[in-house]
Amino acid sequence: VAIKNYFKHYSMDVHVLILSLSESSKDLDSVRRVLRAFEDFQVPRRRQAVIAVGGGVLLDVVGVAASLYRRGVAYVRVPTTLLSIVDAGVGAKVGVNFEGHKNRLGSFYPAQHTFVDRTFLRTVDSRQLSSGLAEVLKIAIVRDLELFEILEQHGPKLLEQKFQASDEGLHVIRRAIRGMLAELAPNLWEQELQRPVDFGHTFGPTIEMAALPRILHGEAVALDMSLSCVLASQRGLLASFELDRILDLMRALRLPVVDSSLDPCILQNAVTDAAIHRGGSLRFPLPTRIGAVAFFDDINFTEISSAHSALLLRS
Amino acid sequence: VAIKNYFKHYSMDVHVLILSLSESSKDLDSVRRVLRAFEDFQVPRRRQAVIAVGGGVLLDVVGVAASLYRRGVAYVRVPTTLLSIVDAGVGAKVGVNFEGHKNRLGSFYPAQHTFVDRTFLRTVDSRQLSSGLAEVLKIAIVRDLELFEILEQHGPKLLEQKFQASDEGLHVIRRAIRGMLAELAPNLWEQELQRPVDFGHTFGPTIEMAALPRILHGEAVALDMSLSCVLASQRGLLASFELDRILDLMRALRLPVVDSSLDPCILQNAVTDAAIHRGGSLRFPLPTRIGAVAFFDDINFTEISSAHSALLLRS
Repeated sequence: VAIKNYFKHYSMDVHVLILSLSESSKDLDSVRRVLRAFEDFQVPRRRQAVIAVGGGVLLDVVGVAASLYRRGVAYVRVPTTLLSIVDAGVGAKVGVNFEGHKNRLGSFYPAQHTFVDRTFLRTVDSRQLSSGLAEVLKIAIVRDLELFEILEQHGPKLLEQKFQASDEGLHVIRRAIRGMLAELAPNLWEQELQRPVDFGHTFGPTIEMAALPRILHGEAVALDMSLSCVLASQRGLLASFELDRILDLMRALRLPVVDSSLDPCILQNAVTDAAIHRGGSLRFPLPTRIGAVAFFDDINFTEISSAHSALLLRS
Repeated sequence: VAIKNYFKHYSMDVHVLILSLSESSKDLDSVRRVLRAFEDFQVPRRRQAVIAVGGGVLLDVVGVAASLYRRGVAYVRVPTTLLSIVDAGVGAKVGVNFEGHKNRLGSFYPAQHTFVDRTFLRTVDSRQLSSGLAEVLKIAIVRDLELFEILEQHGPKLLEQKFQASDEGLHVIRRAIRGMLAELAPNLWEQELQRPVDFGHTFGPTIEMAALPRILHGEAVALDMSLSCVLASQRGLLASFELDRILDLMRALRLPVVDSSLDPCILQNAVTDAAIHRGGSLRFPLPTRIGAVAFFDDINFTEISSAHSALLLRS
């Protein structure tokens, strides 16, 4: 209603479709539903835009539909969750799940505009906010020690205040988006498949899809990160006090560091799947310190198992 | 079998999916079927390609699937009908029908390679060959008087010989593709919506979808062209002897010039639909002579009706 009134206030004549989606319904059927609405609304090829207001799943489903309808109509994103503000709302990718694989279908279809307003975060529950913080943390670990320190200092408070009422909230959001943009912009079409932002996304998508709908996206990313950091530490890449610091911060942000769904066999399948998707080589990003990663192609089952056991022991 | 043996001969290990498609099944369900096969075949993101061998519908359905799978996998086209050699096999568009509208969904997704071999035309029946000639004729009318003259001289013979056994067959195919490329290449993403190649495609798609599956794509294009030429002649744009020459050639190529499906009300809807698709203005290409077109936005129902009546009288 508030959104309808907003458009009314500016005398904009809009058609509204309200969608209730979740990761489990992020599929071709939902895309088809949106396409039918485009047909009903008579969305033209130019001069009007489809405006998607919602979380990452909604932005992605509407984005895929917009990319297909009339071979592409204008698409504007208004992310309303922390996760979609710092992740799905940045970059050019749209996608839906298919046959149990996360984002197996989609396109590179940049939005014409993305409008970010942290006021929406008032409506996001704290578990979802934590899930969003996982992607902020990811950016911090792969490239931004200072952001990591800000999260250590202010993270729990931001969570409690839902990013309202303080400058740190805005600052963290801006810095996370800036980090994502710096990683994505020079490689928008992913010619280069060795990407630091894939940190947390090697085991993550498989963990998420296997446990659907129990585990949120950011939680799956967090589980991948904790396992990957233990693995990096066992390899001697990451100092053990840095590992502790990362796991401590994850707990402070109320993110899971271990879960019953972390089965070494499933994790091994995830590695196989990721390698196919990354052009035949794994290109597994592992942190060498807080703020930097290196890439590895040679992770084996024994190593995954042993990292998994070590992680269980720590918890 | 011949195609399987071909790949075997070159020791290429391929997965084969055989699809039997027609304009009526050129839809999202067929795309989904192809996507499932990609999943079974474990099509990787890079270093292997999907090869589509078939007519325009198959190339389009597989092309849409290739554009979506892993946000785009390599796609190679081998058109096997005259229509797909000169039309669907040229350019960057892939698409499927949706809710009764032709190619309402799709992308601009250029194939990495397109291989043309006229030997395939031996397997195409003569009605389908005529349908392909409609697109050749279109290119001739909008930009290539010499191609038009070649069709007048050799068209019926090429049809009879199925484009085999003579240099003219190759020459006509090359010239038609070159004409299409010259029109499409500078405007591959259709930033410019005023396109001479839309000749035959204002009423055409609506005629085709309304009469499905009775009328072939090229036949619908032919019906649009005959009506448009009569309209151009009534406007005084096209000399009447040129109109006669066009209609005579259409008949010689065994293309329909009139059909019971040409209902003025449906034609008016087609105009409305085309204007929405062309960014709000009709941009209707009409021939001013054989080899040139001009664009018009102001076609009304009376004019369509009167052209329709005139066409009926002539037949």
